[in-house]
Amino acid sequence: MASSKQLDLLFHALGHRTRRALLARLSRRPATVTELARPFAMSLPAVSRHIRVLERARLVRRTVDGRVHHCAPNFAPLHTVEAWLRHYRRFWEGQLAALARYTANAAESA
Amino acid sequence: MASSKQLDLLFHALGHRTRRALLARLSRRPATVTELARPFAMSLPAVSRHIRVLERARLVRRTVDGRVHHCAPNFAPLHTVEAWLRHYRRFWEGQLAALARYTANAAESA
Repeated sequence: MASSKQLDLLFHALGHRTRRALLARLSRRPATVTELARPFAMSLPAVSRHIRVLERARLVRRTVDGRVHHCAPNFAPLHTVEAWLRHYRRFWEGQLAALARYTANAAESA
Repeated sequence: MASSKQLDLLFHALGHRTRRALLARLSRRPATVTELARPFAMSLPAVSRHIRVLERARLVRRTVDGRVHHCAPNFAPLHTVEAWLRHYRRFWEGQLAALARYTANAAESA
């Protein structure tokens, strides 16, 4: 069972479009902070702060080689988010099924 | 496809253990803000602020009846979070499979 702290860090890390975009970029291949900053038109310190939030959630691993910071993604913690979501799936599936029935009935009686 | 804004609001709403606990409580049955505040030993304004964050993410619907605020859960938006996660599943499944192989090999050579 994931700790509350772990889930707080994960959801917080995912709650910003730039951090999700950084993860998407890293899913293609590892990159340096400089390479990550380029397409976002952001300063290195700004990108570095986002990376730090991802690191705290263990979604990114940073290794420092002199002045070059290498970032590699780590998707394993997302498994924890999925496990949390799984608990609620039956609720939203129930809601979506009810909506589909409602729409079908409305179409029939139109 | 979910908008970035929608995902920002959803992940932000889920990124606090109190808000996840409020959702868990509401998954059992709808409740008033007063009923929600009780087990958390929080002030009504504090709980109300958390509810507002959940409302912005459309995870809770609040109806006001005089001074009583009724809250009902809405789990449908979680479907959006799951769709986002799905894209990364192959990555973490790959990582977990590699870990399992490594552990099995280590056990054999021990």
